[in-house]
Amino acid sequence: MPSAPRSHAEENPMQCYTTFELTFQGERPVGDEVAVDLSATFTVAGETIRVEGFHAGDGVYKVRFLPRRPGTYRWRVSGLFDAEGREECLPAPVADAANGTVDVETGTETRWHADLSFLHGMVVPAGTRFRYDDGTPYRPFGTTVYALVHQSEELIDRTIKTLSSSPFNKVRLCVFPKHYFANTADPEWFPFEKTDGRFDPHRPCYRYWDELERRIGQLRRMGIEADIILFHPYDRWGFAEMTHEECLTYLDYATRRLAALPNVWWSLANEYDLMTKFDGRWWYDFAEFIGEHDPYHHPLSNHNFVNYWDFDEPDTTHCSVQNGHTRLVRDLIERHGKPVIFDEVGYEGNIMYDWGNLSSFELVDRFWIAFTLGGYCTHGETFEDPDDVLWWARGGELHGESPARIAFLRKIMESLPNDLEPAIGGAFGMPVDELLAMHQSGEIPENAKGTMAEVIMRLDEKRFLDLVHDLRPIQGRSGDDVLVWYLSRQCCAHTEIDLPDTRSYDVEVIDAWDMTRTTVLEGVRGKVTIPMLGKEGQAIIATAR
Amino acid sequence: MPSAPRSHAEENPMQCYTTFELTFQGERPVGDEVAVDLSATFTVAGETIRVEGFHAGDGVYKVRFLPRRPGTYRWRVSGLFDAEGREECLPAPVADAANGTVDVETGTETRWHADLSFLHGMVVPAGTRFRYDDGTPYRPFGTTVYALVHQSEELIDRTIKTLSSSPFNKVRLCVFPKHYFANTADPEWFPFEKTDGRFDPHRPCYRYWDELERRIGQLRRMGIEADIILFHPYDRWGFAEMTHEECLTYLDYATRRLAALPNVWWSLANEYDLMTKFDGRWWYDFAEFIGEHDPYHHPLSNHNFVNYWDFDEPDTTHCSVQNGHTRLVRDLIERHGKPVIFDEVGYEGNIMYDWGNLSSFELVDRFWIAFTLGGYCTHGETFEDPDDVLWWARGGELHGESPARIAFLRKIMESLPNDLEPAIGGAFGMPVDELLAMHQSGEIPENAKGTMAEVIMRLDEKRFLDLVHDLRPIQGRSGDDVLVWYLSRQCCAHTEIDLPDTRSYDVEVIDAWDMTRTTVLEGVRGKVTIPMLGKEGQAIIATAR
Repeated sequence: MPSAPRSHAEENPMQCYTTFELTFQGERPVGDEVAVDLSATFTVAGETIRVEGFHAGDGVYKVRFLPRRPGTYRWRVSGLFDAEGREECLPAPVADAANGTVDVETGTETRWHADLSFLHGMVVPAGTRFRYDDGTPYRPFGTTVYALVHQSEELIDRTIKTLSSSPFNKVRLCVFPKHYFANTADPEWFPFEKTDGRFDPHRPCYRYWDELERRIGQLRRMGIEADIILFHPYDRWGFAEMTHEECLTYLDYATRRLAALPNVWWSLANEYDLMTKFDGRWWYDFAEFIGEHDPYHHPLSNHNFVNYWDFDEPDTTHCSVQNGHTRLVRDLIERHGKPVIFDEVGYEGNIMYDWGNLSSFELVDRFWIAFTLGGYCTHGETFEDPDDVLWWARGGELHGESPARIAFLRKIMESLPNDLEPAIGGAFGMPVDELLAMHQSGEIPENAKGTMAEVIMRLDEKRFLDLVHDLRPIQGRSGDDVLVWYLSRQCCAHTEIDLPDTRSYDVEVIDAWDMTRTTVLEGVRGKVTIPMLGKEGQAIIATAR
Repeated sequence: MPSAPRSHAEENPMQCYTTFELTFQGERPVGDEVAVDLSATFTVAGETIRVEGFHAGDGVYKVRFLPRRPGTYRWRVSGLFDAEGREECLPAPVADAANGTVDVETGTETRWHADLSFLHGMVVPAGTRFRYDDGTPYRPFGTTVYALVHQSEELIDRTIKTLSSSPFNKVRLCVFPKHYFANTADPEWFPFEKTDGRFDPHRPCYRYWDELERRIGQLRRMGIEADIILFHPYDRWGFAEMTHEECLTYLDYATRRLAALPNVWWSLANEYDLMTKFDGRWWYDFAEFIGEHDPYHHPLSNHNFVNYWDFDEPDTTHCSVQNGHTRLVRDLIERHGKPVIFDEVGYEGNIMYDWGNLSSFELVDRFWIAFTLGGYCTHGETFEDPDDVLWWARGGELHGESPARIAFLRKIMESLPNDLEPAIGGAFGMPVDELLAMHQSGEIPENAKGTMAEVIMRLDEKRFLDLVHDLRPIQGRSGDDVLVWYLSRQCCAHTEIDLPDTRSYDVEVIDAWDMTRTTVLEGVRGKVTIPMLGKEGQAIIATAR
């Protein structure tokens, strides 16, 4: 017998930037539990958004929607209810709950929560930056806990607690469990149940998804984006060997269920190019599938082992990169015109693998380089632990010295305009863009003849690019208002900078390690000499008055 | 009237590895003072070596010879004495002095000098290493004092004193004065006198050359090779704008005069490729000229700004490189099969230029990388100084923390066999040479299919090479007897190494910064886990029992 229809609409009033959910009680679906015939349309200001519902287990069906702007919303639920031959196991048509109207205002919740970071809405790309729906800048200061949700309740709680007082506002985490160094145990729950001894994407493990979205919700309330890694190669259960159809079934469920959660990001994979059982073309199918099934177009990218994803793929919103050379931010921004996140640059730690034993300074240095050039960087930590609880895989507590410095960097970046872009800079007495154009054309202008610039024109392409890569200053700018230089490992006691002589500037010197920020010159213009600290990790910020 | 012929042969008996000199008094040459018609042959064991003499000023003529092995030497001086029309201003034929015989033994001086390092003879290349004439290994631990000989007597003396207690056994120094940051004053003496207001290579300034060779002699007695830089671009006097003929005249005098000094090396230039007034082909002429006029074939190379010299040029004995990426030692050794010296990798210091403000650790790190891979590295120091006495240009005292660590590295290297070569190492579970060959062929063997190795095969040439460059271990070996790993900035608390399981090894861990060397495992073989220090600058040495 069909159960009485029931809706959460009243106890869960529609609020801007918050998941709205309609719930129906019925019978469990027969056969495939993913592609249930339940959908809804939400209409606001003449725009209609269609969403698909999902089975949440035990005959409970849900439709979720994320209202991203104020207005009067009307919705209409359809499908499922009158499916022929399945009537007896499905909920009957719903009247009030399935069709409704509500007025949504922005920020109605501001009165009851001190930390409002999660009330800015979804993160969206804006040129080479990110912002929330309400226009607030979002700068990803991410960290990495791959197998966060596959740990014990107690350990996950500890991880969430650590995150709550960390500088991090994005976490990279996997849907599938991880089989790799320091994390090889079976999780309590897998994303799917088994059919004939094999994990079956057509049969979600609801307990798993409940827990996953509960944790995503916790992250949301801390202002942390959940960068959901949909596939990865570190597998012994068969998740890295699914068929194309199985993959799409899984993505279907994931998008039906998670897309309305405001802080979800889609990372097609961790190290997609190591998933040798997947045909390379599948990734385009996955991106397109999500593009079609996620009506909100959450941030989407695909993280590489060694071969960058095709960041020009149209559903890809940003560049998610594994590479320790964060100076490459500039090249990626220039090439793709999208935000660039160095999501894996190696980890602070002391394990035996070279990717997992960076000094604290080295990781902080890679962060500063990325951010100064207008990109972003992601943290991870891999210190040996007697219980094998390494932050990067399992969470727990943070032990390194980098998080405090990353917090300092975040504070500095949040004090600057959110449109930092790589400055052109110069090398060999020429703007680098002219140098590059000259090398490409092969023609040397009169004023460069007999100069260093002419000399480097004789280099072959590879050596020329390597050299320019080495020599381009790590410099960002927000127009002429704010100019930032990061000196990385240079230990100068003084340096010279060229400021525009049309305006006057205050100049600050930053110690990225000791976390000091000191005004050293006021009201200067043109070429100025700056007293520096003579140590690694120095930055300069010049702000126009 | 011709003066009485006189020879130093008696007061300066011929000794193995020591400059032998015959001196004649005459009149000053008329016109060109370089191409004087004075030469000699020295014959030992059936081999005859021809040397050319030079005018040393004030009508003093000298012929110099460097005996490099024991034996009975006969010599015969010719030319000059009977040159038609010039008789009145030239010395008359000399009998006993100009023609002589002497028995030379090795090491006859050992009784009267404690530091015998300068009695090993000339340095010569031996494969990808260097050795002295007597077979003793020579490992260049160089430093840089470009304008050493253009300073005040007092400052040069201080520099020599500093060198005497330093770990350095090679100094890069220029013949021509230097016009550049922190060193712009005119020297007291220039290499040439002026003719019509222009420095004239046909008229050597004897005072200058006397002083130059006196300082080379002092270096020799400290066991320090003088890496003589023949040309450089940092010029305001016209030395970087000489004609081809003037250049060869200068090289003629330099080789006549300096070639018999055992510790002389020829560096055609500092940053040859910045000398835009010289045609690129001249460098081949210069190398060939020295090859013909230096009968001993002292070490010869040519130092670059950005474009490596053609190290395959036949008179070039080794690779002299400017580049901070000392991991490239391996590529250069493989490509050229000659010794590789990273003669300029940036300097320890705090000046504003990025090449002159490396941290002490960074310079030490570059040294360790180069030496572990079977190459060599050269020091320099550029700390701000109120009197602008920066070691790299002018000498004086050393202020940095790297020399002590370089001394420690030297001690370690001298405890190892002198045939360290880059180990092939592995990446992605394959020997790197197989990986490279596979990428070149484009064919993926069966056993690599579905592995990480296959994945990186898909990279384009540049990204593939960059990646392999990043990932190849910094590992050297002397056969299977001694295996060395340098972990550079990796902070591991443990690591694993693969030792051959056919022999047993003692394993030491080195702290390159704190200068400790500790045996951590004894009599082990095969794959072993090594307790490390969890900090940057660690090395491992495994020595077969």
